[in-house]
Amino acid sequence: MEVKDFAIWLPCLICFVSILPAPFLGDEIFDYQHMCSADGTEWEGLGCGTTKLLIKGGTVVNADLQFIRDVYVEDGIIQMVAQNLPVTDDVRVIDATGKFVMPDLLKGFEIYSEKAKKSCMDYGFHMAVTTWNEKVAKDMELLVKEKGINSFKFFLAYKGALMVTDEQMLQGFKKCKELGALPLVHAENGDAVAEGQSQIFAMGITGPEGHALSRPPVLEGEATARSIRLAKFINTPLYVVHVMSIDAMQEISQARQSGQRVIGEPIVSSLALDDSKLWDADFKIAAQYVMSPPIRSAGHDKALQAALSTGILQLVGTDHAPFNSSQKAQGRHDFRAIPNGVNGIEERMHIVWDVMVNSGKLSPREYVRITSTACAQIFNIYPRKGAILPGSDADIIILNPNATTKISASTHHSRMDTNIYEGWTMKGNIEVTISQGRVAWENGRLHVKRGAGRYIPMAPFSYLFDGLDKLDLEYVSSFKAPVDRSTAA
Amino acid sequence: MEVKDFAIWLPCLICFVSILPAPFLGDEIFDYQHMCSADGTEWEGLGCGTTKLLIKGGTVVNADLQFIRDVYVEDGIIQMVAQNLPVTDDVRVIDATGKFVMPDLLKGFEIYSEKAKKSCMDYGFHMAVTTWNEKVAKDMELLVKEKGINSFKFFLAYKGALMVTDEQMLQGFKKCKELGALPLVHAENGDAVAEGQSQIFAMGITGPEGHALSRPPVLEGEATARSIRLAKFINTPLYVVHVMSIDAMQEISQARQSGQRVIGEPIVSSLALDDSKLWDADFKIAAQYVMSPPIRSAGHDKALQAALSTGILQLVGTDHAPFNSSQKAQGRHDFRAIPNGVNGIEERMHIVWDVMVNSGKLSPREYVRITSTACAQIFNIYPRKGAILPGSDADIIILNPNATTKISASTHHSRMDTNIYEGWTMKGNIEVTISQGRVAWENGRLHVKRGAGRYIPMAPFSYLFDGLDKLDLEYVSSFKAPVDRSTAA
Amino acid sequence: MEVKDFAIWLPCLICFVSILPAPFLGDEIFDYQHMCSADGTEWEGLGCGTTKLLIKGGTVVNADLQFIRDVYVEDGIIQMVAQNLPVTDDVRVIDATGKFVMPDLLKGFEIYSEKAKKSCMDYGFHMAVTTWNEKVAKDMELLVKEKGINSFKFFLAYKGALMVTDEQMLQGFKKCKELGALPLVHAENGDAVAEGQSQIFAMGITGPEGHALSRPPVLEGEATARSIRLAKFINTPLYVVHVMSIDAMQEISQARQSGQRVIGEPIVSSLALDDSKLWDADFKIAAQYVMSPPIRSAGHDKALQAALSTGILQLVGTDHAPFNSSQKAQGRHDFRAIPNGVNGIEERMHIVWDVMVNSGKLSPREYVRITSTACAQIFNIYPRKGAILPGSDADIIILNPNATTKISASTHHSRMDTNIYEGWTMKGNIEVTISQGRVAWENGRLHVKRGAGRYIPMAPFSYLFDGLDKLDLEYVSSFKAPVDRSTAA
Amino acid sequence: MEVKDFAIWLPCLICFVSILPAPFLGDEIFDYQHMCSADGTEWEGLGCGTTKLLIKGGTVVNADLQFIRDVYVEDGIIQMVAQNLPVTDDVRVIDATGKFVMPDLLKGFEIYSEKAKKSCMDYGFHMAVTTWNEKVAKDMELLVKEKGINSFKFFLAYKGALMVTDEQMLQGFKKCKELGALPLVHAENGDAVAEGQSQIFAMGITGPEGHALSRPPVLEGEATARSIRLAKFINTPLYVVHVMSIDAMQEISQARQSGQRVIGEPIVSSLALDDSKLWDADFKIAAQYVMSPPIRSAGHDKALQAALSTGILQLVGTDHAPFNSSQKAQGRHDFRAIPNGVNGIEERMHIVWDVMVNSGKLSPREYVRITSTACAQIFNIYPRKGAILPGSDADIIILNPNATTKISASTHHSRMDTNIYEGWTMKGNIEVTISQGRVAWENGRLHVKRGAGRYIPMAPFSYLFDGLDKLDLEYVSSFKAPVDRSTAA
Repeated sequence: MEVKDFAIWLPCLICFVSILPAPFLGDEIFDYQHMCSADGTEWEGLGCGTTKLLIKGGTVVNADLQFIRDVYVEDGIIQMVAQNLPVTDDVRVIDATGKFVMPDLLKGFEIYSEKAKKSCMDYGFHMAVTTWNEKVAKDMELLVKEKGINSFKFFLAYKGALMVTDEQMLQGFKKCKELGALPLVHAENGDAVAEGQSQIFAMGITGPEGHALSRPPVLEGEATARSIRLAKFINTPLYVVHVMSIDAMQEISQARQSGQRVIGEPIVSSLALDDSKLWDADFKIAAQYVMSPPIRSAGHDKALQAALSTGILQLVGTDHAPFNSSQKAQGRHDFRAIPNGVNGIEERMHIVWDVMVNSGKLSPREYVRITSTACAQIFNIYPRKGAILPGSDADIIILNPNATTKISASTHHSRMDTNIYEGWTMKGNIEVTISQGRVAWENGRLHVKRGAGRYIPMAPFSYLFDGLDKLDLEYVSSFKAPVDRSTAA
Repeated sequence: MEVKDFAIWLPCLICFVSILPAPFLGDEIFDYQHMCSADGTEWEGLGCGTTKLLIKGGTVVNADLQFIRDVYVEDGIIQMVAQNLPVTDDVRVIDATGKFVMPDLLKGFEIYSEKAKKSCMDYGFHMAVTTWNEKVAKDMELLVKEKGINSFKFFLAYKGALMVTDEQMLQGFKKCKELGALPLVHAENGDAVAEGQSQIFAMGITGPEGHALSRPPVLEGEATARSIRLAKFINTPLYVVHVMSIDAMQEISQARQSGQRVIGEPIVSSLALDDSKLWDADFKIAAQYVMSPPIRSAGHDKALQAALSTGILQLVGTDHAPFNSSQKAQGRHDFRAIPNGVNGIEERMHIVWDVMVNSGKLSPREYVRITSTACAQIFNIYPRKGAILPGSDADIIILNPNATTKISASTHHSRMDTNIYEGWTMKGNIEVTISQGRVAWENGRLHVKRGAGRYIPMAPFSYLFDGLDKLDLEYVSSFKAPVDRSTAA
Repeated sequence: MEVKDFAIWLPCLICFVSILPAPFLGDEIFDYQHMCSADGTEWEGLGCGTTKLLIKGGTVVNADLQFIRDVYVEDGIIQMVAQNLPVTDDVRVIDATGKFVMPDLLKGFEIYSEKAKKSCMDYGFHMAVTTWNEKVAKDMELLVKEKGINSFKFFLAYKGALMVTDEQMLQGFKKCKELGALPLVHAENGDAVAEGQSQIFAMGITGPEGHALSRPPVLEGEATARSIRLAKFINTPLYVVHVMSIDAMQEISQARQSGQRVIGEPIVSSLALDDSKLWDADFKIAAQYVMSPPIRSAGHDKALQAALSTGILQLVGTDHAPFNSSQKAQGRHDFRAIPNGVNGIEERMHIVWDVMVNSGKLSPREYVRITSTACAQIFNIYPRKGAILPGSDADIIILNPNATTKISASTHHSRMDTNIYEGWTMKGNIEVTISQGRVAWENGRLHVKRGAGRYIPMAPFSYLFDGLDKLDLEYVSSFKAPVDRSTAA
Repeated sequence: MEVKDFAIWLPCLICFVSILPAPFLGDEIFDYQHMCSADGTEWEGLGCGTTKLLIKGGTVVNADLQFIRDVYVEDGIIQMVAQNLPVTDDVRVIDATGKFVMPDLLKGFEIYSEKAKKSCMDYGFHMAVTTWNEKVAKDMELLVKEKGINSFKFFLAYKGALMVTDEQMLQGFKKCKELGALPLVHAENGDAVAEGQSQIFAMGITGPEGHALSRPPVLEGEATARSIRLAKFINTPLYVVHVMSIDAMQEISQARQSGQRVIGEPIVSSLALDDSKLWDADFKIAAQYVMSPPIRSAGHDKALQAALSTGILQLVGTDHAPFNSSQKAQGRHDFRAIPNGVNGIEERMHIVWDVMVNSGKLSPREYVRITSTACAQIFNIYPRKGAILPGSDADIIILNPNATTKISASTHHSRMDTNIYEGWTMKGNIEVTISQGRVAWENGRLHVKRGAGRYIPMAPFSYLFDGLDKLDLEYVSSFKAPVDRSTAA
């Protein structure tokens, strides 16, 4: 299978980050490519070799329920979730009293990859559809049926590169529906963005603030409205990635009110930030906030938090694509050349906890849903992922709600020299991370094994496809067509 | 504690049916009053005495997950949910191969009560607040803290009887919030309804159609908007019972989009019917469809189904209040005298399955959520109720998706001589019902024990109250008040 | 006719200011009462005696059309609007070259009253309905049929004083519709406002900022929604006075989209200000901004401007009710005692010009519509008022778009010692005002005659009532009721 | 100037019908081409030679005002509108007592053309922009500055023919704004329509009902949303032609609420009809209802009437494009080959009167606004057209509200052998039509002069462009950009 009609396919560890041509990728992602083809064996640190774990006394949190339970892990699988499990000699015990024991948050495990230079985490991926022909259709079929891909991403922006036309989007949506694969959209009107970039630059606005000014919320709203309505026309589920604005959120809300199966994913930066830093007089700082769609002005953040708290939006992503200051500096004199992307993976778990749980907007249970369970269900790997249940993969975090976290480029684990959440201080700290039943992170130290990450194939026809055939049938029946005109005069 | 400031308190078995003065109650409900004070002991039928059950081979469905599992029940509790559980001699085995094993649907177990004349089902109840003074406030506190009540119902209709003023509603909401009890509203503008009734009757419209014409959707929309906004003002969660119209649904949708904690409950008749039967030339038929708020014209039903399918509305109720033809005939010459209420409990499980699952709008998993799990979570008795999990009460139904059900007054179990779903035929049949670990219904026969039903106290401060204190604090902080004016000239 | 069931009826010169009990009135209004009973005769200044005027070379602006024309006035009436009218000896010529000649803006002429202590302007008034009984109904009929009243105001706020219940509002709306009189509403939920005031005061927030905090936009939205829906139920036109918030505006917008005849009137302060001054550390300044509904936070103003610019809202009012610092000081220690009201009449014409025309949002033509023509049409005195047409009353202003105006308490004509628009500087100045064909204001000087103002009776059944009978008939026909059940078994 | 990048430019008499390639034109339009190049001189009938007319005793109706007045006409111009004008010998008197005298409704005068085979009516036209390059831009400039064109139409449907891409639309909008010309859009998603046509035809639905099924309202809503948002991005006014659906109307309503200058034009068929006839078993009947966007199902019509009645939509068009049965029969076996278009011009005045005025939804005054005045203002030829004022062109109709009209193909004046309003009976009849001061229609007879129609050049920069420069300036100022980063480290 060739990939020229898709975006370049890097078999990458990042779960649910679209596969893109190099100019769209941050530096960490290139590492992954190498990393995943490697077959590392060594382990750093203490305890990684231990495969029997007993997490005692913590508050186990699943999306629908939380209770105090012990969790017993063996062979990378959660074996038991029960009270007062006995301790044996060959078991490492982790005391979680007073702490939350939660499913390892999907999209969150990548933080270790950069430092370790090797992956020890499971991964899956999306593919981006960038054109349309018979070959693409066949490749999609192959990817779904044989390669464990169950979602495809369509870009309505990035004119001249990834952007698809409405016709291509329609054909892609049809094929997705046939295959039971979920279409994802990056929703901005690419033609208008290009026009906006020209106009703003022509006004002499060359700095990072020009990025936001050239692609205002109305263009995100437009593309969201368009993709939702075309998905309705095809009657396929749709997933809108990185919802950044009220405009997009309202379109999703309206569609859902009418019964349409649309998933809306705000991201950490759209929930927690506003665009003010793009006006910072220090280019280095301002440039770090450049991403697409842009971080919006104050007010959008609160509105997205509200919609997320009541299920109008369903889960939180990151769209992690970090670039160092030196890379961002490519656009020193032209915002159009600033690589698009912000950090977020390392901070996501903490920032979302702070913005949504510490603020009172969500319970820990709902936090698990929006950061883990909903994602696993949508991508059809629940309850292997997304739950702390017997039989689930032992991907677990332990969060201490009483500890304090402070985020800073001076202390974070990324190689990036800036952090868009610089100085953010909050209650709540993730003290232990367990991956595949092994302690990957503890006491501020990373313990990972090269290449231990497994590719997780994802089956098509998630719950979002349930009953679509019946709905189609009912719709066609409502046509009362064709009319029999054989007997007319 | 006196109850004169509440609606009359009948210690009734019906879970989540408001306690009302006699004129608002159907005949079955009066039976319950007697029934619940009785202390029956005998059991009818075979198998009721068996307390060890093994349900084999069925598809166990919970709100978040479904899989093929055996379910082992003992002492009224689900003990195990696992694969290939062994069969022992003292266990009764029920084969559920090819069938769905689901939590006994809350609000659905009452169907047996009428026939049995005695209750064997667990129950809880709401209280209605109908006025406001210090005594009411103290009684509410007592009910919540000592009697296991965690919700109170407010009627904005029924002028001169149950209706509360805005001031009473506000005070009631405040007290509810303080106690962690959920306020429920019947949302119609009672003043306008009274005016509408006078006008329509004065036009010479005296029949059942006059009922719908006198209280159009705009009055439901008004009261829904009002109660939601006053709940926002108080910052309390709110539960809107029997959502019958697009008007009400859109208010709920808008509120949720803005982050407000509003629960919307359509009911079986609002999902499955339209108002056309109220125009039936046969008074007996037309009168059976009289309820409040009224069943609406075609279009409202589909819109409510859509909103329910995407979580804009959260669960399905019945507002069951059946009256026989002879009772309905009190309003033969004046629709205002027709007792308000329709049947629904017996049919609810089947009709909702047909309308939402057979149609393709919901999966079985989601069906469990809207009929059982959401209710148990909202009223804070999850996972004791609302789930098939080890430790949960063994309230279970077994639904055969391939069998056929036909609803008719000639075959239903109610004593009513009509059925508003007369002739409804569908795929799917509930073949077995288990209550407290005993088979209560099987092979079309009822096996119940008088007075076996237990009162289920419900704790306050459900998840809907999580973080409200933080939200209040944040709100007050945003005031930046009081302003210090001590130093001003 | 007694007036105890209405608010106190002061035969006051202020056109379209509701008649209220004394505590709700600013000091100027008390003057009016005396003034209007007086029968002054003297004139101040030059030119007032001249009854023949020729306004030459100006741009005459009507709501639908603007062109350069001369305007000839005699006997208080516009006699001709044409090009190149000849100048005769007995005519006073006013050169309006390069200036706009516009209908005297309704609600704007009162500015002179305060200074002159006598009225020379025409006037009409509303009546407030504050209760309901047969007597009120008969009085309303008398007022409409014999006294030239064609609108009645209903207060949903001011609990214990002016506030009506929903039943009273419904009965009042019905009577209004029958009489062809327009119901006006002050839309805030009075019960909730009272609750809010208690809560905020109990928090220790006693200053002017407490006023806004105690009655947030949600309460204005609620009452607006309620009155609109009850008006729909009655099928009567409705006029919402002083729209202050997005919440209220959106309700009006939705109603209009559905074809309902609802008029929305923002006021100068809701278009031009935000609430920030209520937090001023100087009580004297902060208190001047206290009015109800309150001036809202930033964002509401822009949204109301937008809705006004496209006809979602229809005209601009003032709700002028000025109080001196000494009067406002009554609430020095309790915001609930601060008299409600802001200045606005003197500034209205200029501020609206600046906010809507200078900003590019409206043309001068549309400015005339929202400040004059729409009001005259709604209150059924067009084209006697609201237009510069032959036959219209010669109430005319001449605005120089190139002159500059600066607003300040140190220069304004009111006796008030503060001005909420203090320091506002703008292009555009009204240089001449003509009332009843006489120059009333010119060169910064006032020329008025005591008691020259005439009461303008207003006929019922404005255009807003056109076709209501047909709509009612169509609605009733749609009932298909009563159903004939005489032949049923 | 070449026209290849525009749609073919037929110098046609039809005011405000877009100029299209032949396949998109009905048969009448081809006649116009010939007709307009002819230079007829003869007049038929009585009275056409008379150039002095006195219309006595009628109720003159303008958009803002109606009163009983005489109207004196000479030299094709309205000379006087006054009471009791004297009758002289050389004047023809027309008695209009008890009748409405209204501006000749724009877009309505074409009805005579077909029968007369020659035009005696004034005309203007739009141009359609179908691609984008430098030549197109220059041609647009020429058309606006020298040819009296002030609007351009963009088709988002008709893929492969007229359809423009988003980029072309954006460039066209920019140029329009620069020139002060109004962009018009045909709003349907052409890519999706093509897909829909293929799908529906592949289902075996080949008849006229397939036309509606292949292009559902969601595609009109999408394209309306898109064009509105791109117009907002450019900050240009926009005119949405033939609004057929709730979906499109709601987008317009939302945009207007936010202050955007969007004009929405429903048409006679979208107000008065539903799609049921497309299912007629007689192909000849069904095919006559084929137009684009399609006539929608019942419910859309009432919603559009409501929005029109309150100014959410502004004026009524026809999109007249009639085809005979023989032409429609081209699509006998494939709905895609049925020429798109319905009749409407001859019936428009009557149908709109019936649907909007007889029903009580609008007054005669508002009828004049939506059928004539608004159009003249939008296309910047008011008050030459669109009003009965001294100086206006004497294009006048006299409507007798008490006479009865019945519409039928057997009596209409078109050569078409069907009529989509067949059998429509109503009160109200237009008895006299005056064009350029001559009686063109009277007593059921036509009196027209070949080639008497004059081309009406239309100036750019209508009121819709007022203040746009200020709004742009304010917007750019809000950028606070570029940020000065010269001094940063």
